[in-house]
Formats: sequence, C-alpha cells, structure tokens
Amino acid sequence: MRPMLALPLMVLTAAAPAAAPKTPTEIVAAAPTSAWRTIPAGDLLVMELKGGGRVVIQLAPLFAPVHAENIRELARHGWWDGSAIYRVQDNYVVQWGKNESADPLPMAVVAKPPAEYARSARGLKITPLGYADAYAPRAGFIAGWPVGHDPKTGTANLVHCYGYVGVGRDLSPDTGTGGELYAVIGHAPRHLDRNIAVVGRVISGIERLSALPRGTEALGFYKERSQDVPIASIAMASQLQESARPSFQYLDTASASFAAYVRARANRKDDFFIRPAGGVDLCNAAVPIRATPAR
Amino acid sequence: MRPMLALPLMVLTAAAPAAAPKTPTEIVAAAPTSAWRTIPAGDLLVMELKGGGRVVIQLAPLFAPVHAENIRELARHGWWDGSAIYRVQDNYVVQWGKNESADPLPMAVVAKPPAEYARSARGLKITPLGYADAYAPRAGFIAGWPVGHDPKTGTANLVHCYGYVGVGRDLSPDTGTGGELYAVIGHAPRHLDRNIAVVGRVISGIERLSALPRGTEALGFYKERSQDVPIASIAMASQLQESARPSFQYLDTASASFAAYVRARANRKDDFFIRPAGGVDLCNAAVPIRATPAR
Repeated sequence: MRPMLALPLMVLTAAAPAAAPKTPTEIVAAAPTSAWRTIPAGDLLVMELKGGGRVVIQLAPLFAPVHAENIRELARHGWWDGSAIYRVQDNYVVQWGKNESADPLPMAVVAKPPAEYARSARGLKITPLGYADAYAPRAGFIAGWPVGHDPKTGTANLVHCYGYVGVGRDLSPDTGTGGELYAVIGHAPRHLDRNIAVVGRVISGIERLSALPRGTEALGFYKERSQDVPIASIAMASQLQESARPSFQYLDTASASFAAYVRARANRKDDFFIRPAGGVDLCNAAVPIRATPAR
Repeated sequence: MRPMLALPLMVLTAAAPAAAPKTPTEIVAAAPTSAWRTIPAGDLLVMELKGGGRVVIQLAPLFAPVHAENIRELARHGWWDGSAIYRVQDNYVVQWGKNESADPLPMAVVAKPPAEYARSARGLKITPLGYADAYAPRAGFIAGWPVGHDPKTGTANLVHCYGYVGVGRDLSPDTGTGGELYAVIGHAPRHLDRNIAVVGRVISGIERLSALPRGTEALGFYKERSQDVPIASIAMASQLQESARPSFQYLDTASASFAAYVRARANRKDDFFIRPAGGVDLCNAAVPIRATPAR
C-alpha cells in the first residue's frame, strides 16, 4: 500500500468521471491567460547561495513601499553579496543579511523607515476569503496578496504565511531597514502580523531555506559562524542578463479562476477526500504562482 | 542591529517591570507541578534514525484507539526496524514506514481498522480555544490534544497541526493500518482533518524530520531508494531500558495555567509586540510539552 495523501493529478484525471468537481490544481491549470499577472522584474529579488541554489522573492511594494525600495537599493549595490543565513529556527523562520553597523548602508537607503505594518485599504479591491480568521476581523486578498482587513479602521495588512518574508527589527520604535530579512518556514506565525513589515514572499526555492539544518542556539541562531550558510549574491532580477532572469506570474486574486480555486480548496472533493472541510484558512489558500510560460 | 523576532526570555525578564504581563513562556515555566501530566511510556513511540538522531512520538489512543494499538504492536515486533523515510514534501509532510505486502503484519494488527477520524465527544471535557476556526464549528482541547468540535453532531476530531502524525492510507474505504505514517512539517494542512486518522504528535526531534532534503518526485517522494533516510528502529518507550527511556509531560489543557497561556498567546504583550493579535489559531496555541523533571 502506498498512502496517497494527495493524488497525482494524472491518476485523478484518469479515474474521475467527466462531471467530477475540479481539484484546485485543475482549476489553476485551466485558468485563462488573462487571469495571470506577470510580476515586474523590478519586484523580483534573486538570491544565489554560494553552495548552489537560487531563491526568488517577490517584493510587495504595495504594502511596504519604503522597505521594498530599501531592499531594491541594497540589492542593486550588491550589499548582501558575501553575507549569510545565520538563523534557522524550526517551525518559525530562516533569517539572513548582515549588520549595517559593520558595513554602511548605501546612501539612498532610508535608515528609519516608517512602520509599514498595515495600510489604508481605501481604493484597493479586496476579494474576501469568505471564511473565519483568528487574527483579523476579515481575511481576503488584494492584488495577489493575502491580507487581514479591518473594515472599522479601513486598514489592510499583509500576513505571515509560509514562505512570506519580513524585515527583522529591534524593539520598537525601530522598524528595520531591510538589511536583515527572514522567511517563514513553519506554521504561519500570524501573531507577527501588524508588528513587523512583511515585504514579500519566496516564490521559488523555498526548500533551499526550509531544509537547512536548524540552529542550536536560542531562537535557532547558528552557534558557530562556520555553520552560516553563505550567500553568493542577492540582486534584482532586472539587473540580471535576460537569459538568467527569472519570470513569474501570479493568479489574479480578483479573477473568477481564483474564486473557484478558493472554493475548491475549502471543499476538497477529489477521490481522496471523504469530508470536505467547508472552510479554508488564509494561508492554506496560497496564491498560485507559475513560471511565465514561453510565448 | 540584531533583529529580535522573539526575545530571549532572560532579556525580557531583565528589562520588563515587575507588573509586566507574563509571556506564554513565562506562564508555562511558572505552571505548578499539578498542572503537568506525565505521558505513559506505553504511549511513546521512539524512532532511532540509522544516521543518528531520535524522534519521539506521543500516541493518541483516545482518538484513534485501534490505529494506536496497531502501531504499538508493530513497534513491539520491531516491524519498522530497517525501514526508511521515503517522502519529504516541502510545507506538507515527511512520511515513513513500509509496504505491508512486502512484510506481513504481526497477527495482532487489525488489517482494516475503523475510520477513526472523529469520535463522540460525550463525556469528554472540552476546553474551548475561544477564537474562530476556519475548519471546525468550534476549536478547543481535550486531554492535552487540539481538536475540532461540532456541538451539533457531538463529535470531536484531532487536528493536523505542525508535527502531528497521521496514518497513510489508500482511497476510501481503506483507512491505513498504521504501517505507513507521516508527520506534518509545514503550515497545518487542516483540510486533512476528519479524512485521515491522526494518531499522535512528534514531541521531540521534529527537526530530524523537518530539515531533511525534500524529495524531487511528485508529492515529495525521493527519486532513488539510495536517497531514503534509513530508520534503525522504532520501539515503544516501555520496551527500552529505563536509562534509555524518554519521559515527557504535557500541560493539562483543563488547567488554569493552560488557559492563561492561550490568553497570552492571543495577546502578546512583551516588549517586542506593538499590537496584540486579539486571537490565536488552534495550531499556534501548541500544547506545551516538557521533559519530565528529575525528582
């Protein structure tokens, strides 16, 4: 017996009658070209690990414009080249970067950015998740991003889901420059929402971070600097030669395909499932991402 | 600047005024001996990896008695000794065990256990979580375990949180024997709740599983058998010599300490946090576990 926690798509397609409800994967695969949005190269951060392996991060300037621009500026200056991953805490975060006191920030970097932890939702189209959230009055999506939303205050905030990237900071009023970043590698630590600037998400190569050895010091810091995982470079995709430049698309969260995807995630009806949940949490309705198809 | 995503306890204690609200960690540390429950050695499964490293799993016979007894029987017979971890899917599960067709099950193993996916809650004390859940009408705790609860049907089910262990199965009506098991290593896949038998949780050594290289085949299976992670043995703690026998305790989820812990998890007020969430999801209120203190 080979346990099938999630059936391969091909098996499903072969076994299911024509009228069977589509799986989330099938819905995404069938989404029309018009439902996909190409991520600008200026929003893609490309980390190359010295030992091999690429991690691509999509920045979220809509939610943390000053932090995102700081990060772009640091990448353009190659500020992280030769830096390292120095913290891996199980079921929590992987953290990298370097201490700006050791290496001055490029002049254009804003040393004390505003607290970009939530923003006005005015003028932004919010697609409701439609299910309960333990952390925000409402959960939904804005322009391809999962958000908490408070209709009373009219604010929205990007949330800490698996693979999401935030800005390390010291105690408030420090907000972090962006020089030290972390990515979530465990159950969504949503209690950090609205307390830290979330600046993006890993859209390719998360396993290069999540499978790293855990640090044995408090909070998962590596004990010895020799344990650090060296970073060869972090650059903006727009700086790379076109042949080496990654390109990705996300599924428009205002599209009919995305709405169908969320409904299917909440009501799994493929052969494996007996009892559809009737709900889905915000971080289990991950916004679909794909490599931009060749024309 | 060293970003402090979560402050070390000592720093907090030193900096906080005497009247500062206690952190979750402080509340757990201050819980009286009477609030801790020692886990019976007959509920502890001890996996030793061939390459070194121990993983300890607490079984949940209250929720899946037949599957739990199957697992005990397999462990007592050393049935998994020499088997392997053969699947590591990022943000999902690590899976191990072996195919029972290759190696007959001990006679006492129930080949077709009932579908122990939810049980009657009658007579069980449920401590409500007190916050919204996307997957169950109510979320709460029973005897040290996180559960979904449906007051209308009077049922309760153990849930898929980080580190929780379930029984691999084929398509329904198969329910799995327990010979192949998985542990969650990502955001809680709660859509599996009530579809699979959850039989326990990893209470020590989860990082031996979660940091393993991800499988590159569909669903995270390792491509080559040479990539499998060999398991030296899986035994019940009660079979081990007393000197090698682990002992753990969980915090009684009906205790005042646990209630205070959940409240503090939902309303983080230590120096790092600016805005307490005002809520917590079931899997972010992990039931505290500790090694049994020496007398």
